[in-house]
Amino acid sequence: MSKLVIVGTVAFDAVETPFGKTDKILGGSASYIGLSASQFDVDSAIVSVVGGDFPQNYLDLFSKRDIDISRIEIIKEGKTFFWSGRYHNDMNTRDTLATELNVLENFQPKVPEAYKDAKILVLGNLHPLVQSSVLDQMSNASTLVILDTMNFWMDHTLKDLLEVIKRVNVITINDEEARQLTGEHSLVTAAKKIHEMGPEYVVIKKGEHGALLFNGTNVFFAPALPLESVFDPTGAGDTFAGGFAGFLAQTENISFKNMKKAVIYGSTLASFCVEKFGTERLESLKSEEVRTRLQAFKDLTRFEIELTT
Amino acid sequence: MSKLVIVGTVAFDAVETPFGKTDKILGGSASYIGLSASQFDVDSAIVSVVGGDFPQNYLDLFSKRDIDISRIEIIKEGKTFFWSGRYHNDMNTRDTLATELNVLENFQPKVPEAYKDAKILVLGNLHPLVQSSVLDQMSNASTLVILDTMNFWMDHTLKDLLEVIKRVNVITINDEEARQLTGEHSLVTAAKKIHEMGPEYVVIKKGEHGALLFNGTNVFFAPALPLESVFDPTGAGDTFAGGFAGFLAQTENISFKNMKKAVIYGSTLASFCVEKFGTERLESLKSEEVRTRLQAFKDLTRFEIELTT
Repeated sequence: MSKLVIVGTVAFDAVETPFGKTDKILGGSASYIGLSASQFDVDSAIVSVVGGDFPQNYLDLFSKRDIDISRIEIIKEGKTFFWSGRYHNDMNTRDTLATELNVLENFQPKVPEAYKDAKILVLGNLHPLVQSSVLDQMSNASTLVILDTMNFWMDHTLKDLLEVIKRVNVITINDEEARQLTGEHSLVTAAKKIHEMGPEYVVIKKGEHGALLFNGTNVFFAPALPLESVFDPTGAGDTFAGGFAGFLAQTENISFKNMKKAVIYGSTLASFCVEKFGTERLESLKSEEVRTRLQAFKDLTRFEIELTT
Repeated sequence: MSKLVIVGTVAFDAVETPFGKTDKILGGSASYIGLSASQFDVDSAIVSVVGGDFPQNYLDLFSKRDIDISRIEIIKEGKTFFWSGRYHNDMNTRDTLATELNVLENFQPKVPEAYKDAKILVLGNLHPLVQSSVLDQMSNASTLVILDTMNFWMDHTLKDLLEVIKRVNVITINDEEARQLTGEHSLVTAAKKIHEMGPEYVVIKKGEHGALLFNGTNVFFAPALPLESVFDPTGAGDTFAGGFAGFLAQTENISFKNMKKAVIYGSTLASFCVEKFGTERLESLKSEEVRTRLQAFKDLTRFEIELTT
């Protein structure tokens, strides 16, 4: 099986939506990416850090899905990274109520020896210098590196961010962030500029409006599945990245054609994520359910127009 | 050839975008719908009204495309409907600078005798009572009626609007209007509620984010083509409706499968509309160009995932 390394946060989230609110539940980019990627036949490892307050049963959740957690460092005297947010009625915008970095502040990720030549590396949203330090540890130049980031790093550490962007193959970024990073309103033009920064593949996530995959002049669009209700959008972007990376790792094929499928798998998994609070829906997700929803994606997008005449 | 009747405005527009501004140019819902539908093999007629100030060469533009203009009433002593607007930098929002109804104020559309049994009737954005008066003139119960409307009528003449909605087969409406009409944020739920109001087909236009087609539990999504620059969005929704209706009229097939194709044709024509000011791009549009862009839509959305295993 292909190896997949996921570096990101494992955290506590407290979420408030128009449908209800949670106490501290499992959150963090690496948690969503890992659970999502665990739908595929891959050997994956999460590299992260938590405090002494992090419950064993959350760690067991990863282990039960055969995710290597040997490099989720536990700092006994520290506290786990905590984020809290409240979504507005439209579910597209949210206010951050609290961000407590805690043990994340001094996070020095260490990739397990056996994973330094992994097929795929996902760098979840973290300080760009931390992301760079992971790249320095990898031993195989052919590892496909997928980077996620956000506007915070553009505002505060743009130079470091540009350095790490230069070194990755794929970037996943949302539409507003793509515009901020490039100063271009058109996503087509923004993707071109990001290509010039380094990544040969650019995935622009548009939330409920789907996702675009760019590779030079090739472009592919995957809609989000229209849903009756979005319960909690937290982690949808990371779940997308996890599905995308998991599928690529399993199939060991990074052609544009296969990348398109990976985008559909990512969108499919993200469509489950938003149905319940936090990681709850991902935890119970069955492969038959994924299959049924992939069919829904086919039905949603398929049309027949013959252009040969 | 199938007959298509288009009832709507033929107008002057003055548009300002970040790319420039126009003097009074050809505008109006029926103009866009008619020019767009003229890409198909259909017998179409525009029913509208203009003033004595309306230039003959604009009327010739329709005639040259074999559009019946016998019921574009010319009120010599009146002035043509005029709309003026300014788009913001994001091109998704605009301010209306002027709306002069002029001859539109007393518009009493009269469907040409030969078109009262038309295959397709498009009711462009107008007062719902005017739209209803057109329905009263039609003689064939099997005419497929496509209604376009906007938030203005929801705000001011909701009861009349609901009456006309009850009588149509297809409604095209944008996402915010669908939400306003139903009080539902989810477009899936909104479409359900609109089904209950009458139309068995609901098309929700999301501008640069594409369009959704609902028919009971069937749903289809067509993206908008990602463009490097949107020059002027005016008329894109009407151009969509014209392509949608023109294709249905030509093919005389209103199965869901064919409706999906019609949505793609509508999206394709709309993608041209926004490339230049007003109707300019539609006027010069060649069928080969349409064909090439249809291929781009296929490439944009096509993926292969086998689910048989």
